[in-house]
Amino acid sequence: MQKLAVGIDIGGTTVSYGVVSENGDIKLRESFPTKNYQDISEFIVYLSERINHATAGLDSKHTLTGVGIGAPNGNYYKGTIENAPNLSWKGIVPITDLLSQKINLPVYLTNDANAAAVGEMTYGGAKNMKNFITITLGTGLGSGFVANGKLILGHDGFAGEFGHTTVFHDGRECGCGKRGCLETYVSATGLKRTVVKLLSKAKMDSVLRDYSYNEITSEQIYKAAMNGDQLAMDAFEFTGRILGMKLADAVTILSPEAIFLAGGMANAGKLIFEPTKKYMEEFNFPIYKNKVKLLSSSLPENDAAILGAAALVWESEK
Amino acid sequence: MQKLAVGIDIGGTTVSYGVVSENGDIKLRESFPTKNYQDISEFIVYLSERINHATAGLDSKHTLTGVGIGAPNGNYYKGTIENAPNLSWKGIVPITDLLSQKINLPVYLTNDANAAAVGEMTYGGAKNMKNFITITLGTGLGSGFVANGKLILGHDGFAGEFGHTTVFHDGRECGCGKRGCLETYVSATGLKRTVVKLLSKAKMDSVLRDYSYNEITSEQIYKAAMNGDQLAMDAFEFTGRILGMKLADAVTILSPEAIFLAGGMANAGKLIFEPTKKYMEEFNFPIYKNKVKLLSSSLPENDAAILGAAALVWESEK
Repeated sequence: MQKLAVGIDIGGTTVSYGVVSENGDIKLRESFPTKNYQDISEFIVYLSERINHATAGLDSKHTLTGVGIGAPNGNYYKGTIENAPNLSWKGIVPITDLLSQKINLPVYLTNDANAAAVGEMTYGGAKNMKNFITITLGTGLGSGFVANGKLILGHDGFAGEFGHTTVFHDGRECGCGKRGCLETYVSATGLKRTVVKLLSKAKMDSVLRDYSYNEITSEQIYKAAMNGDQLAMDAFEFTGRILGMKLADAVTILSPEAIFLAGGMANAGKLIFEPTKKYMEEFNFPIYKNKVKLLSSSLPENDAAILGAAALVWESEK
Repeated sequence: MQKLAVGIDIGGTTVSYGVVSENGDIKLRESFPTKNYQDISEFIVYLSERINHATAGLDSKHTLTGVGIGAPNGNYYKGTIENAPNLSWKGIVPITDLLSQKINLPVYLTNDANAAAVGEMTYGGAKNMKNFITITLGTGLGSGFVANGKLILGHDGFAGEFGHTTVFHDGRECGCGKRGCLETYVSATGLKRTVVKLLSKAKMDSVLRDYSYNEITSEQIYKAAMNGDQLAMDAFEFTGRILGMKLADAVTILSPEAIFLAGGMANAGKLIFEPTKKYMEEFNFPIYKNKVKLLSSSLPENDAAILGAAALVWESEK
């Protein structure tokens, strides 16, 4: 008998899901636009139909054990998505209750970055690690922390919002209402804000001087840096400096074996890894120096969210 | 049969130890100057004699289960005190091996602030908590972090050095060799450095203008603030602002139920608690606002270190 889990990744744009085996094979994968279902009841009806359809054809050697969901502002303890700014379902949505009533299976939920950490621990580079951190660099900065072999969920189930630590107390405006949050510096958006700041501050030539704020993308900055554009390279250096400094702070709390960088910006390779590592070591308390590995996530980028969500099911059985 | 543990607190000045019951009664308490034993072998011989003497008279209703030690730079996994700047034993001292060979009992070790967290969880205000932080404010700033009901020791056993997170990247020189560490602002020494900076920056009168840097103590600053000295009050406000801001960072990782302040400076009461709470809430990511309690340690100050060290024994049995 092979156990299977459904992993669901709910993003602002797309809902992706897959049927995943205990060893990480994705047997089926589908996705649809999140905005198709502005009403949560309709979303649940559609999703449960898809899950039933996907698993209806299972032979007697397979059994579906449960469903895991990664979603913004997902609360593990309560099974609720709470006031997620990028989803159209407002207020507090009891998504695990709604879904498990329809499909008669246990449903687990956490935020997407915590799910990525569980995925890394179950299927990725953190398989044999008890203490590590994952940082996902996308539009924002997500994070998941594992200590003593367990995901840190905190007293209220919302732990792991490292993107909202304060870098500069009077710094950049953040979508959360605060100023100077880490993700306003270290994320695709943060990188672009840094480029635009450098365009105002420095006089050097840059191909990026011909584009408006709205036109500039992190991919463009990456290409410019790879072509030797000094201003773009400086923007990556600054981004890595801020990330390295704040990771050194996190190291004092957790003393992790490794820190995994995932998400689109991690694909910039040594442009982001080198300054991050350099400044993390510079700011590390001496006792931690040269002990903490800075690694790429070993999960395929397109599968990471589904694998992480599915891994919640196995993690909950421990 | 009542189980007992010996709790030993090794400080730069004094070694204190006590025989402690599972419910936290200290049946015997002794101390001696740390500097009496510059040689670790002589220290171990003396300490084991004292332990044997203290427990020789136990009746058949009592049994000694083990020994716990809190010491600077104490490593739980290896049982070693490593390069502690304030102790005369240099290099890496395998103290748990040395002591357990003499007394034939298990010996556990961690740093003093981690021991304080275990003490709070076993005997103090964190008895029913699974996620909390302790901050000890003395000459420096010590910290212990508990998540999912377990002390975070990290990959190498040295987790919990929050005093060495970076507040200002080009800030005050720290004894650790870095600049801008939290404990250079938030500690008895940090408070004094803030006072002396304010003496240079502000023009207002203050009773503290008549004392040299070396003369000023945190007790004196406390008294001045209680007597309405504005400069002394501003120094506490600044200290609480920095602590509150950095605690808000730690909250994003752990989402704790409570943060306990312990140590001498916590006795300054609302002078330190009020600004710390105010600024922690100001810097908190919205999802955590008004959820995290800021509490005094409920362990008697003189007993906390012994109770915490003894509690390591019960914690290790879990």
